[in-house]
Formats: sequence, structure tokens, C-alpha cells
Amino acid sequence: MKEVLYDVVTFGEAMIRLSPPGFQRLEQTRSLEMNVAGSELNVAVGVTRFGLRSAWVSKLPRNPLGFAIRNRAQELAVDCSHIVWSEEGRAGIYFIDFGAAPRPTEVLYDRSGSAISRIRPDEVPWRSLFERARHFHVSGITPALSPSAAAATAKALETAKESGCSVSYDLNYRSKLWRPEDARRVQEPLMDYVDILITNQEDPCLVFGLKEERAEDLAEAMAASYGFKMVVVTLKEALSFWAARWTALAYSGGEVLKDKEYDVEVVDRIGAGDSFAAGFIAGWLETGDARRALQWGNAFAVLKHTFPGDFNWCTREDVETFLEGGGRKVSR
Amino acid sequence: MKEVLYDVVTFGEAMIRLSPPGFQRLEQTRSLEMNVAGSELNVAVGVTRFGLRSAWVSKLPRNPLGFAIRNRAQELAVDCSHIVWSEEGRAGIYFIDFGAAPRPTEVLYDRSGSAISRIRPDEVPWRSLFERARHFHVSGITPALSPSAAAATAKALETAKESGCSVSYDLNYRSKLWRPEDARRVQEPLMDYVDILITNQEDPCLVFGLKEERAEDLAEAMAASYGFKMVVVTLKEALSFWAARWTALAYSGGEVLKDKEYDVEVVDRIGAGDSFAAGFIAGWLETGDARRALQWGNAFAVLKHTFPGDFNWCTREDVETFLEGGGRKVSR
Amino acid sequence: MKEVLYDVVTFGEAMIRLSPPGFQRLEQTRSLEMNVAGSELNVAVGVTRFGLRSAWVSKLPRNPLGFAIRNRAQELAVDCSHIVWSEEGRAGIYFIDFGAAPRPTEVLYDRSGSAISRIRPDEVPWRSLFERARHFHVSGITPALSPSAAAATAKALETAKESGCSVSYDLNYRSKLWRPEDARRVQEPLMDYVDILITNQEDPCLVFGLKEERAEDLAEAMAASYGFKMVVVTLKEALSFWAARWTALAYSGGEVLKDKEYDVEVVDRIGAGDSFAAGFIAGWLETGDARRALQWGNAFAVLKHTFPGDFNWCTREDVETFLEGGGRKVSR
Amino acid sequence: MKEVLYDVVTFGEAMIRLSPPGFQRLEQTRSLEMNVAGSELNVAVGVTRFGLRSAWVSKLPRNPLGFAIRNRAQELAVDCSHIVWSEEGRAGIYFIDFGAAPRPTEVLYDRSGSAISRIRPDEVPWRSLFERARHFHVSGITPALSPSAAAATAKALETAKESGCSVSYDLNYRSKLWRPEDARRVQEPLMDYVDILITNQEDPCLVFGLKEERAEDLAEAMAASYGFKMVVVTLKEALSFWAARWTALAYSGGEVLKDKEYDVEVVDRIGAGDSFAAGFIAGWLETGDARRALQWGNAFAVLKHTFPGDFNWCTREDVETFLEGGGRKVSR
Amino acid sequence: MKEVLYDVVTFGEAMIRLSPPGFQRLEQTRSLEMNVAGSELNVAVGVTRFGLRSAWVSKLPRNPLGFAIRNRAQELAVDCSHIVWSEEGRAGIYFIDFGAAPRPTEVLYDRSGSAISRIRPDEVPWRSLFERARHFHVSGITPALSPSAAAATAKALETAKESGCSVSYDLNYRSKLWRPEDARRVQEPLMDYVDILITNQEDPCLVFGLKEERAEDLAEAMAASYGFKMVVVTLKEALSFWAARWTALAYSGGEVLKDKEYDVEVVDRIGAGDSFAAGFIAGWLETGDARRALQWGNAFAVLKHTFPGDFNWCTREDVETFLEGGGRKVSR
Amino acid sequence: MKEVLYDVVTFGEAMIRLSPPGFQRLEQTRSLEMNVAGSELNVAVGVTRFGLRSAWVSKLPRNPLGFAIRNRAQELAVDCSHIVWSEEGRAGIYFIDFGAAPRPTEVLYDRSGSAISRIRPDEVPWRSLFERARHFHVSGITPALSPSAAAATAKALETAKESGCSVSYDLNYRSKLWRPEDARRVQEPLMDYVDILITNQEDPCLVFGLKEERAEDLAEAMAASYGFKMVVVTLKEALSFWAARWTALAYSGGEVLKDKEYDVEVVDRIGAGDSFAAGFIAGWLETGDARRALQWGNAFAVLKHTFPGDFNWCTREDVETFLEGGGRKVSR
Repeated sequence: MKEVLYDVVTFGEAMIRLSPPGFQRLEQTRSLEMNVAGSELNVAVGVTRFGLRSAWVSKLPRNPLGFAIRNRAQELAVDCSHIVWSEEGRAGIYFIDFGAAPRPTEVLYDRSGSAISRIRPDEVPWRSLFERARHFHVSGITPALSPSAAAATAKALETAKESGCSVSYDLNYRSKLWRPEDARRVQEPLMDYVDILITNQEDPCLVFGLKEERAEDLAEAMAASYGFKMVVVTLKEALSFWAARWTALAYSGGEVLKDKEYDVEVVDRIGAGDSFAAGFIAGWLETGDARRALQWGNAFAVLKHTFPGDFNWCTREDVETFLEGGGRKVSR
Repeated sequence: MKEVLYDVVTFGEAMIRLSPPGFQRLEQTRSLEMNVAGSELNVAVGVTRFGLRSAWVSKLPRNPLGFAIRNRAQELAVDCSHIVWSEEGRAGIYFIDFGAAPRPTEVLYDRSGSAISRIRPDEVPWRSLFERARHFHVSGITPALSPSAAAATAKALETAKESGCSVSYDLNYRSKLWRPEDARRVQEPLMDYVDILITNQEDPCLVFGLKEERAEDLAEAMAASYGFKMVVVTLKEALSFWAARWTALAYSGGEVLKDKEYDVEVVDRIGAGDSFAAGFIAGWLETGDARRALQWGNAFAVLKHTFPGDFNWCTREDVETFLEGGGRKVSR
Repeated sequence: MKEVLYDVVTFGEAMIRLSPPGFQRLEQTRSLEMNVAGSELNVAVGVTRFGLRSAWVSKLPRNPLGFAIRNRAQELAVDCSHIVWSEEGRAGIYFIDFGAAPRPTEVLYDRSGSAISRIRPDEVPWRSLFERARHFHVSGITPALSPSAAAATAKALETAKESGCSVSYDLNYRSKLWRPEDARRVQEPLMDYVDILITNQEDPCLVFGLKEERAEDLAEAMAASYGFKMVVVTLKEALSFWAARWTALAYSGGEVLKDKEYDVEVVDRIGAGDSFAAGFIAGWLETGDARRALQWGNAFAVLKHTFPGDFNWCTREDVETFLEGGGRKVSR
Repeated sequence: MKEVLYDVVTFGEAMIRLSPPGFQRLEQTRSLEMNVAGSELNVAVGVTRFGLRSAWVSKLPRNPLGFAIRNRAQELAVDCSHIVWSEEGRAGIYFIDFGAAPRPTEVLYDRSGSAISRIRPDEVPWRSLFERARHFHVSGITPALSPSAAAATAKALETAKESGCSVSYDLNYRSKLWRPEDARRVQEPLMDYVDILITNQEDPCLVFGLKEERAEDLAEAMAASYGFKMVVVTLKEALSFWAARWTALAYSGGEVLKDKEYDVEVVDRIGAGDSFAAGFIAGWLETGDARRALQWGNAFAVLKHTFPGDFNWCTREDVETFLEGGGRKVSR
Repeated sequence: MKEVLYDVVTFGEAMIRLSPPGFQRLEQTRSLEMNVAGSELNVAVGVTRFGLRSAWVSKLPRNPLGFAIRNRAQELAVDCSHIVWSEEGRAGIYFIDFGAAPRPTEVLYDRSGSAISRIRPDEVPWRSLFERARHFHVSGITPALSPSAAAATAKALETAKESGCSVSYDLNYRSKLWRPEDARRVQEPLMDYVDILITNQEDPCLVFGLKEERAEDLAEAMAASYGFKMVVVTLKEALSFWAARWTALAYSGGEVLKDKEYDVEVVDRIGAGDSFAAGFIAGWLETGDARRALQWGNAFAVLKHTFPGDFNWCTREDVETFLEGGGRKVSR
Repeated sequence: MKEVLYDVVTFGEAMIRLSPPGFQRLEQTRSLEMNVAGSELNVAVGVTRFGLRSAWVSKLPRNPLGFAIRNRAQELAVDCSHIVWSEEGRAGIYFIDFGAAPRPTEVLYDRSGSAISRIRPDEVPWRSLFERARHFHVSGITPALSPSAAAATAKALETAKESGCSVSYDLNYRSKLWRPEDARRVQEPLMDYVDILITNQEDPCLVFGLKEERAEDLAEAMAASYGFKMVVVTLKEALSFWAARWTALAYSGGEVLKDKEYDVEVVDRIGAGDSFAAGFIAGWLETGDARRALQWGNAFAVLKHTFPGDFNWCTREDVETFLEGGGRKVSR
């Protein structure tokens, strides 16, 4: 049995996230709040809040922006020793203008030319990394970054599988990065390595051409087509900017598992899906119970909406208190 | 046919607007957010967001506060070359304490002695200005500032009409500036020059003594009494501080046009009426279709509630996306 | 008849209150907003907003934190000349992380070793103080701080009563300071001095073992058991973080008085109960009418939710305007 | 012998003071820092820091700006019970743009129409006030505000003298408020009531036509001409924005007293002269020693430069530590 | 004689400028101050402060960052109607970490792939633009951006000259954009169109291989080699971060003109050279006197150091007051 | 030869550090900047900036303040896996009011009852920790915290030595924690384990009763008395608040090594001594050259003055550039 150093390894881009305070637009603002964000980093951060050890693999420019990204990951206990430092390429940046109903929140990506888009499959010692890991997670954003990033993703997935890691994959389709047909062509071969597929209701239809309308059917169809052990479908409803409703269901072992719907007051919804993935993975790794994993995923996603920034600052204890009905009252 | 330099010319006061952050009261705060605001300036700013060219006429003190007001107008592309610079008089200031239900938002005006209250009718080259303009807009605040400001308003309206401009007038009754009987005496003669009258449901009753209870009837009665081409009545409902409902109807060509009601999450509702006027005027000038104008006005007013400050940072494109049902989801 | 210098005297701890801005957690933040708070100080501040004169008695360390607490009390016109200045003991601190549904607001107390926990009954010239006062108010937090603080509370209550002051007592059970059995043992003897008992629905059950389920019955039972002239029960419902519902009822003269329920948008609910007490006491002292006192208490508590910090910045005039139905519209 | 309630009474205007952060200009800024300031209020605040009791007399508008001014005075323990509250007139405002060498700090006054400019001599119960006071201080700004303010100043000085108070007067010539000849005509009669005249080197020449070039001679000449017990001349040198040199000399009992020159790092030099006056008055009242008063005045003025805002947050203890050579090292 | 619409036209890139507050490093900060900056835009802004009319030509992405850049230029009255709006390319960004001695201020450029680097010479209607202009200014940064930007620069210079504009060129060598040999090869042909060459002491040596050590000789040699009407050499000395010394000399009409050295307290030195250019150009256009132009340039550059951001908020009036010795004292 | 996991292990307290912005005093401020600081943590952070691996040992309360301290350490790559988490005791807090000459910076400690003061010698697995470490560093603050902390310090030093680690000790006398005689009694036995003693000029005299006046002699005497391999004496001179001069000398191998004096502009001098220790230790571990270590220590200490907060954000590369004369000019 292998000596485990990391419970979870993730691989992907993280960006500098800049947003005007107080519902201003970029045109209007004189200052920006600076955070760090990226789907796979968000997951790596999330699982540490449950007490798991995680490592995040990426490629960053050797400059202050790259260091800032690393620091924020370290702040939340993510191992950054496998970051590839680059003299070329930039740190991706994205801007968020937070809206209020009916003005939508707007994201402006400025991520082209990033260091990670130039990553080569052999720049990371995947083998030695996964030999000390239990689980690998990646999302559909990473292969969308560039052909070489797609090749690195394939290499990582293959090696993780060979090394005995379980694998989760968040479909996370990004229309600004690639077209559906490319997303399908590149990702279909990758699905072979995936145990747990996480997605929302739209992406499988867009990317894999599925047509099921009910989430339950969609999950079952995905599992049937690609042989996933589990398929999770997150279901969010944006009631307005400041109110949302969240749930998710899982197809596992031939059964559809459901959870109740949660109402949230929204501080910042960006990263909620990544928190779901982190909670689900942590729940699965810690308990081996899909129903428990679903609850942890939902609770962690729901709580994420209440923090500014993509990261989730709740802990396993907060999640458990919440699931036990811990309340709304200030405790004195 | 005249060479048009300005699609819209507006005339009125703009003030320094100071507000404590974070729902504090003035008594409580240690800092103030500084914006610039004024009904007619807000309209001049608004129409530029639709791609129209506007000029704003005013009188400002030649000091840093006057310059600050000018700069903010210029920032949003409003032509300020017709501002009259004065060695006397001050810049008006107003303070806003933002409330939360059930504490009302409170406005403290400190506008007496302003430079514009001393404006003389002949200080502005109205003739040459309107000969290069398509439309003139003013509100009932300007004649309320002082007798000489009222005389200048009359002169402006008369000259605009003579120069072939269409004219809109926002009734905008301000009880802190004058009494209803004075508002009626001064404004009734001005109504002769007005094509489009914009108002809420209360002001016509207060100022002109109308008694119609339904907005439709009010609009029709106004049109009948004063011969307006169009009458628009805005209908807002403050559900709480953080939630409001908005619509407006227009009486045009013997017909009452209605639009749906819009629910909004409120960041800052000040200036929504001015945004309505801007959207309506822009829609009318661009499309000549009153129904379209009404939709643009409503959409622009609704979106205004989501920005801090009196100005509206949405564009024609945002308005069109919104009217086409562009959604609540973050676009990635 | 005595010459009155203070309408209301209160006695208790005040702390430095630190909270991260923008719904951040302590782990996450780089800055803290600094306020001053404490149940009895909040009441002393509250009654000055109705035009009453108040004095707040406490023991503070002679250092900048102690001075900061004093300054904030003085800023709102509370007489601080009876504070005992100490070379020993610290200023208590408490941290608040504001939540959003479903993440609860969390309070972290760091109050042990405070100067006031070392207060001795004879350090304050109670006699001369109460001879110039009309009313004394204290809450169950003060005797919970330490045995000597409990002894000082007893001494204060006894002397107030002897000096002809009316007395109100807010039960305010704090589970982090003592156990229910200690709270009962220490407080039961104190109830003899109390005219007006203010509490919520849970504390009498926890502390005095009452079992009545309906607030009306609870109030009546309290009055019967302990001989209070009046018992007030506050009833709050946290609909979410950003929305709450508030009311209170009073048992007075053998009758249960009720008021309507108020909906509020919540900026900061901490201190609402103290605002109720302040409004009720002020109403009672000013009008001698329990129904009026109840309305003032409710109105003042409701308005408190709309200010950041524990203090209430509304005035008697605001309360009266609100009770007369003064509205939601911005006044211009 | 009279029962003293106030060691020092002062009389004058206080304004809302607004300044852009970070060396921005008003044209440039989006926010303002809000302080409260006024020469005589600054002195009233200053003497409380030495443990003296002070009252500040003024006339303020009954609105949030007036209340904000009062609150800040109370925060530093100044008695505000003699403020005259007015339904008319505004709160004066002044704006400061802080410069850096060689760009000068600029002040924009917006003080016309202030409530205090409408004060009437009989609106303040001067007699009963001064019968419980030891010392009265006023500056040349108060009579410059308006003829009625000048009359009130005369009345106050006369009554103070009759009531046995000692009197200090800071010449404080403000060229934006009146012309030298008016300043002379109005103030010369007032000099009869003054014991301690405080001034800089320029004002006596401008106002009273003195021609002495050396500060020593100027002080002596002033004493000779007007019969002052003491004349103090402050001598400041602005080495740059961020560095200044300060001293003052006093003519007392036929002798010129000097102190050393102090070098300071400047955070905010506004109000340093008022701090000098406060320190000097406190020193004189506490010790009766002109040399000690001069040292306290200089020390307090010097330390003022290190605080943002007009107020001085140092205490008697800080002043004494500083004068004993308490050092530059952080104490651990 | 041509009808002049613009006194000065400039052409170049402007970027979003982001800097951490309070001497933090990028790695350390949680927020960024957002300004807009670019050598030629800074000059266009600068000349408007002297009352001249300017237009700035550039190519910007049609997105919120592009709009933010335009807005800031408009705020200071720069005509932006000739900006080429692009669907491709990004807005350049640069980050500044402000240092304190001995830690240097550090700039991190993130400007590759900018819209302007893709500009084509024929995208701007140079002819019609320059036919209504008096003067054209560009710096060596623009041709360094890309070969097509260099071609556009050449086209602009040629057309400006043909249209009778005077031309100034700031050498502004940027080692991060190109190598000295490329800078020489590209720029030498452009020198034919230049009337006024502005540079520091290092760049001519690096780019054109000059070897003169004294600034006077350098200026004369430049004029001799390239036939400039005037050569200006700026001479700055960074005494520390917070203190600097500035002067410049001009070679004009066979004569070396000098000015005195100015000491400054440094708030933000970025953009001082551009302010020099603006002041010099304004002085030359307004007075035709090289000595006056040199003084205006120096004064404007010196005053720039005192504002945060690249722009200069002083006006012609400030410059004249400063040159007349207007002082350090706060004016009251 | 041992497998090294940590280059440097340190042991001590870290506190929450709160300071008012903008030279305000605690009495004055409405917000606080929140940092984390502690002598040994500062050193652990410092060495990571040179690329070394460090672990910091401490005892922290299991609450948000404890987590905040850990996060900040992790952010800068310090291993926190050996922190002892406690259900009892609090996180120490300290407040800093930054002064400007001549007002001193003031520190208010609120550290009593901290979790680490209750640490027991056997709570940390010292043996296994030091078997994987090269160097151990602690300061005289740790044994001053409590007798049990002193016992733990002794245990740590003894075990480090036995495990073959080199040991450095910063004398760091804190008069607020213990008296000189206690400091001597407790620390003298500890000196046996120390290789490198770091101190300023005052502490050895206070604690060990040394009387040498020249730093050189002091260092030599210390080495002679206690058998240290190296003694380093830091020599700082606070020219004012905003300017300081720094150097240090080392006695090593019978020789006194000196370095030049460095002038600095001071942003925040707290932690400069710890940065010296970090730079010296890093230099010694990396190069084995005492002269180089001294230079690194001085450079790192000097650069520390330019960052807000106790931590040093410069890197080995910055230090080397600085020592090679890398300059004051902005690099473009």
C-alpha cells in the first residue's frame, strides 16, 4: 500500500481576480479588490478545509503575480511544491463586475498567453507525484487552455489512473476558450480515466450532445455512455443577485441520490461549483458514502456563496454544524 | 437642414454629492464618498451611453469643486464647453444617508447661494447652441432655483423651440425649493414649449392641481390640458430599501402605452428617474417609436438602481441585451 | 424632591468590538472595523438619543483602549465621570464575523481578565450617584463577569432602590460566562430590587426554570413569581441574515400589551435588544405610559438593525416619525 | 470664591473639514475624509487633554452636520450644553488638499451663511456661564464672521472680564473674511479685555500696523500698546511639507521668554497654532508659570503636527514625557 | 491659414496602471489602486491643464478596460474621438510597487498583445486630423510596440509634417520593448520630421551611440547630428524615494538655456517626464519663448511628483503662481 | 548524515498585530490594519524568502485568531504542522500607534493568558523534529512568557543541540515581560547551547550586566564569557520616524567584522531586528561565511523598514541586487 502524502492533487490554471468594490463597473472604479482564483485551485483549497492534504499543480510566471498566486494557495495550506516556474508567459487575469438584479455579473477574461497554456506534458513529474496521492481532480478548463495543456491533462489523467488514484472531472465548459466540437473531440478520450464526473445540467448537452431534460436522466445517461462510477449534477437557480437556490443530485451504484434545496443570501457566487466538488470529493474520500459526499458537497457549495472571493473559508466543523441544523442565531 | 453637433442639450444644476459608506449616518461617519449629480446632468450623461452627443449647460464656480463637477461630466463624454464659469456663488452640495427598511434614505441639501442660482438669461448663447442641436431637456428643478434661473429656463425653452428643437420637460417638483403655487405660476407658461412631459404620479396633482387617480387618466388629462405630444408617467414602488418595482406608461397619439413591471435589487435608487428620461429621449430620437422609447426608458431606469452614484454606466448594448431577456447568469 | 442630574444610570462592561468588512471571516481579513459596545453602555447611549441625560458606570484600564471606549460613550453624550480607572486588567475585546444565510454570524469573545471583572462594590460612590438619578438599569451580564462584579451589582441595585430610583433589569443570559444554575443563584436575590424586567423568550426558562411556552404566559408568570411591576418579552425572528422580524409584548398592570410585527432589512442586528431597553425606558420615563414605552422600544429596536455598530443613531424625532408612518420615500 | 464648572470656555465657529486622501486634489478624488475643526473648538478640545474641563459655545444648525460637529466635540469631553441650535443657517465646510513640496496645501472655504454668522449677542447666557468659569478664550476669527458675531464676541469678552475670568485672544487674522482695516476697527476695542494675546509674527503688522521686525520687539510693543499681561508670538518655519520647525516666545512681566526650536515630521499641520494656545492656557492655569506655559504650548503644538485632523490626541502625560526627553524608541 | 481644432495631437498606448496601497508589494496586497497612464496620453492630458485643446490617438479594445482608459482621458478634457476601437487585442496593464529607500520602485509590464500593437498605419485618418492641428507629439515607446505601430508612427510623423504641424518627440527608450540597435534603426529615419527632441541623459547614448558626457554637449551634438530646432535634456536625481531634485536644459538657436534645480517631496514620480514635455510644449505653443517653455516644463514636471497617478492635476495658474514664488504657506 | 526537512526551526509566540491607519492613535481610529507578528515567526518567514525551508513551533488557540496566525505563516511558506492547538488560552494581541517625530511609535501589548504561555516542554516532539533540521532559532521572548515556556525553551535548546543542529539566540529583552534579574537567571543556563548570539547594544548590559561601551568590545566580551561561536550586535539609529540608519557588526573567529551604515526611509521599522537574524542565519547556512552573513543580515534588515507589517517581502534576489548596488531608478 502506498505512502500517501497528498489526499488530493489538482491541476489547472489560477488567475489574479480583480473586482471593483461596491457594485461599481470597471469603467467607474478607482480601485480593485485582488483575489486569486481558478477552478482546480479552488478545489485544492476546499479539501484542505476538511483536513485533507492537497497539492496543486500548475505553471506560473516567475514574477510577483505568480508569487501572489502561490502565496494565496499556501495561505490555505495547499502544497505548491510542484508548480512549474516559467520565465515566459504571463499570469492570467480576470475582472468581475458584480451586478444586482437585473444587471448581470460580468466577467472579463484576460488570460491569453498564460504560462500554463505553454505547459508541456513532461514538465511535471506526474509519476512520482501520483504514487504518493489518493485522488486526482481536474476540470474541463485545463485542456481548453491550449493543445499542450490538453496533452498534459491527458498525461496526468493516464498516470493518475495507472498509479491507483481515483479521478474526478468537472466538465466546466467555457465557451470563451473553445467550441463545443473541440471540447468533445478533446475530452471524450479523457473520460476513460474518470471515476466521478461532476457537471451542471447544460454542459453535457452542449459538449457531448446529450438531450436528456431531467437531471436524473442526464446523470444516468452519462454514466451509461462513459462508464463513470458516479455522476453528479449541480442544480443552481439564481433567484436574483442576492438570493439563490442550490442543490445537486448524484447517480451512483444505479441509484439517483437527491438532497434538499438550500436558499442562500449571495455575497459572491463565483467558485460555488468548485466548492461543491471539494466537498463531494472530501466526503467521498473521508466516508466512502455517496450520500454523505453529496450532502458535504451541497453544504460546502451553499456556504461558499457567503464569502467574498472564490475560496471557501468554512471548515469541516462548519459543514457538520450546518448539516445538523446549526442555526441562524448569533451564539453568545 | 441644420448641422447637428449635439443630439441633446440639457440645462440645470449639478452638485457635489457626499454620502457616508456602509449605511452610516452623517453623525457617525469618518469619511464620505464623493459623486457628482444633478437631474439634467444625469440626463446628459445618460444619453451619451446610447451613443448620442450631449451638451450640458450650467453655471459653476471657478474653483476645485466646480472643476470636479465638470470633470465627471466630461468623463462620460458630456460636452462642457457651454458652462458659464463664475467668480461668485458656490457649488451646491447634498448629503445622502442611505437607509435600510424601515429607516428611510435621507437627503440633506446645502445648495443655497449656488452659482447657477445667479445665472442670467443672457449669459448663455442659446441661439447658436440650439441651432446645432436636435433636442432640449430641462426639469422643474432649474426654474425653482431662483427667479433669474426661471427666466433663463424660459429663455432657453423659447429659443430651443424657435430653433426647431424638440423639447422634453421633467416636472420634478422639489418641495424644499418652492411652494406648489409658485411652481404652478412659474411653470405653466413654460408648458407651451414642451413636447414631452415626464412626471411621476404625485407632482401633477401637487403642482397643477390635477385630481386623476389612475396614471392613465392623469397622462391623458395632462396632454389635453397643456397640449403635450407625449406624457410619460413613471410608477415606482419601493418594496423596501433593497428591493423596488418599476414601470412607466406613456400617453402618445391618443393612446396609452404600457410596459411590464420590473423588479430590481437596489444599490442606489437616486437618479433612476433621470435615467428613465435619458432612455426615453434616446429611444425617441433614435427610433421615433414611443413604445420603444418607453421600453428604453424603463430598462435604463431599472438598470440605474444597480450602480452607486446618480450616473448610469449601462450602455445601449446593455439595454438591448436586457430587453431581449439577457440573463442573470454570469457569462463565461 | 431630589435634584436630578441623570435620568438614567447604567452599570456594566463595554468592549472593543472588531469586525472584518464585507462578510469576510477573521481568518481572511486584512483589516477590522473598530466599534465600542456593551449592553449597558448601549442603553446609556440609547436614552440620550431621546434627549435624556445618562451616566454609564464601569471600570476601565487606563490605556488607549480604555480611553477609546470612554470617547465613544462621550461622543453620544453619555456622562463618563463615574468610570473607575484601573492600572490593572485589560479592556475586553470581541470579534464579529458577519454571516449571510445560511452561514451564521459568529462572535468570538476575548474578555477574560477585564478591568471590570475586578471591580469591588465600594469603588463606586453609589449613594451620591443615585441620589441625583431617576432610574437605574443593569443587565444579567454584569453579575456574570465575576463574583466581585456580582457583589457590585447587588450593591448598586440595593442603593438605587434605597435612593428612590426605579430599576430595570435585562436578563441577558450569556452561556459563555456562567451556567444556568449559577445565573439563578446569583440573580434571584437581585430580582427584589427590580421594577421592570426585560427578557427574551428563552432566558427565563433557562435561568429561572420557567416552562410557559407562550410569551404572554411567561410574562405573567414572571410578574407573579418575582413581583415585577412590568415584564417585557422581546420576540425576534431572523428570517435570514438580511431580513428579520421584530416585536415585543409587555405585561403591566395585570394586562398584556402587544404591538405589531415589524419587518427590517438588517445591516447589523447586534445591540437591537439594548435599543429596545433604551426605547422602553425612555418611553416610560417620558410618558409613564407602558403602551407608549412598548412602541418606543420596538421602534427603536427595529431602527437599530439599520446601523453598523451596536449604537443606535436614531433620535426621538426619528422614532416619532416612524411611528406616525413616516415613509420609505426619499424626502426632497 | 466662585464654584468652577469650567476651567476654560471658548467661543467660535466649527466647520466640517473634508480632505481627499493620499495627496489627491479635490478634482481628482472619489472620497473625502471627514473631520471637524475650528480654532476655538480646537482649543477647547486641547485643554481637556490636560485634564481641564472646557465648554465650547457656538451656534449650529439643527441638522446632521450640526450634530456631527457636536458629537466630535463631546467625544473629546468638551461640554456642548451651551451650543445655540438654529433652524436657520448652515454648517460651514472647508476643504483641504494636502500638498507636497513644492505644491502648497490648499484650503477652500465654503463657510458663508453659517448659523454662527447669525448669532445674536443675547442668545447665550454669558453671565451665568462665566460665573462658573476660570478662563475665556476666543480668536479673531469669531468677530470676523459677521457684525452680529462681532457684537457677540464683544459681549462675551466684557462679561467674562466682569465675571473675573482671565482672557486669552488669538489674533488669527483671516484675509478671506475681512480686510485689515475692518479687523483693526473691530478688534482694537476688544483688546481692553484681553490678558494674554497670542499671535504669529505677521498678523499684528497687518492688523494693528506694527512694524517691529524681531518677534521679541513685536511682543514687547504689543504689550506696551495694549496693556496685555502676556504676549506670545509663535514662530513656525515650513521646511517643506513633510518637515517643519516650530518655536514660540512669550513676553511676560517685562521679560522675553524663549524656548528651543523643535523639528517635526508633518502629518497634518492644520491646528498647530490652536494646540499651542491650548497648551499655553493649560500650562498657565495649572502652574501659573509663564515659562512652563510656553513649554507646554510648544510641546503641544509640535506634537499636533503628527496627527491627522485639527485635534490633538496627546495628553498631559505625553507632553511631560516629551519635555523630559522621552524618546524616539518604541517602548516594549 | 488652417482652422485649428486641436492645439496638440499625441499618439501612443495607454495602459491600466495598478498599484498596491501603502508601500505594499504585489505579493502582499489585497487591493490595487487603478489609474490610467501612457506617455503620450499623459502629455495630451498635461497640455489641457494649460488651457490647450488636445486629441489623443490610440487603438483600444472595445471592452470595459478600453472604456475605462477613454473615460479617464475624457475626464481631463482630452478629445478621444480618434481612438480606433478594436475587437481584437487587449488593454495593456502595468503594475507598480512603490518602494522606499533603499528598496526601488518596481514596474511589472503586462502589455504584450495589446490592441495598439496591431494598429495599421491607415487605420487613422491622419491627414484630416493634422489639417486641423498645430502640433504633434509622440514618444519612442509607440514605434517600439510593434513593426506596424512603428509604421503607423512614421506615417503620422510624415503626415503631421506635411500638414504644417510642428513636431516633438520624446526619445523614451524602453529596454523591455526593444534592443538599442532596433531602436536606432527604426527611429533614425523618423528624426527627420522632428522639431523638438526631448530626452534624458542616458537614452541618446544608448540609442544613437552618442558619447557626450555633459548634458549641454549632448544637446548640442544631437541638434547638430539630426537637425533638431530644439533639444531638451531632463536631469533628475532621485535623492531617495521621498526626495528628488529636478531640472532640465534646452539647446535652442545655438544657445544652451538652463533653469534652476528644484527640490521635491515625492508622492509619485511616474509621469514626471511626460509632464515636462507637456509643460514645454504648452509653453512653446503659447509663448514661442524657449526659456519660458523650459520653465513651464520644469515647473510642471516638478509639481507632477506631488500627485498620485501619472496625470498632472496642476493648471497653468498653479504653474505661474509657483514660478512667481508662490509659497509654501497654507492660504487662508 | 541526516535527511533534512527543515533548514531552520524557530519556536515562539506570534500575535495578532493591530494598527490604526494614517498615523492615527487608537483613541482616534475607526478601523485597524491586521497583521501577524512575532519575533521567531518573523525569522521563520524571513529565511523562506532566501529559499530555505522553515518550520515554526508554537501553541495557538483553536479559534479564528489562531487560524489567522497560522494562515499568514503558511502564506509565506512556513511549515505549521508542529503548532500545538489548544482549547485553552487566547491569542496574544498587540496594538501599534505609528508616530511621527517627535511623537514616538507606541506599542500596547495585550498578551497575557496566551495559549503559548501554557505550553509544556513535552507537548512538542522536539526529538523527531530536530532530527530532520539543520538549525534552531529562538529569542529571549519565549522563555520570558512563563516558567513553562522557559522550560520548553530549555528542552528545545537541549534537544536541538543533541540532534546536531546549530543554534542561534536573539537576546531580545522585553521589560514588560520580566525583570533583568529573572532574565539573567533563566537565560544564563541556556547560553550553553547557543552558537550564534544576536543582540543589540543595550540588552547584554541590562540582562547580563556587561559594561562594555563599544559594540566591538561587547561582542568580544560576550563571546569570551559564554563561549559563543559568533556574537552579532545590531546598531540602529532612529534619525526620526521616517529616517533611520542601520548597521551591525559580528565577532567571529576572534575577529570583529563590520559593514557599512545604511540609510533608510522608514515605512515600518517593527521586525527589522528579526529580519537581520533571518538574513544572517540564511547567509551563514548558505555560504558559511560570517562576512556574507553579516551583509545579508544588514541588507535584509534595511529592506524590511520599507514594508508595512513585521514580515519581510524581499527575496534573496532582491538582497543580492541591493548588495551589488542595484539602484534607486525605476526599471522599465
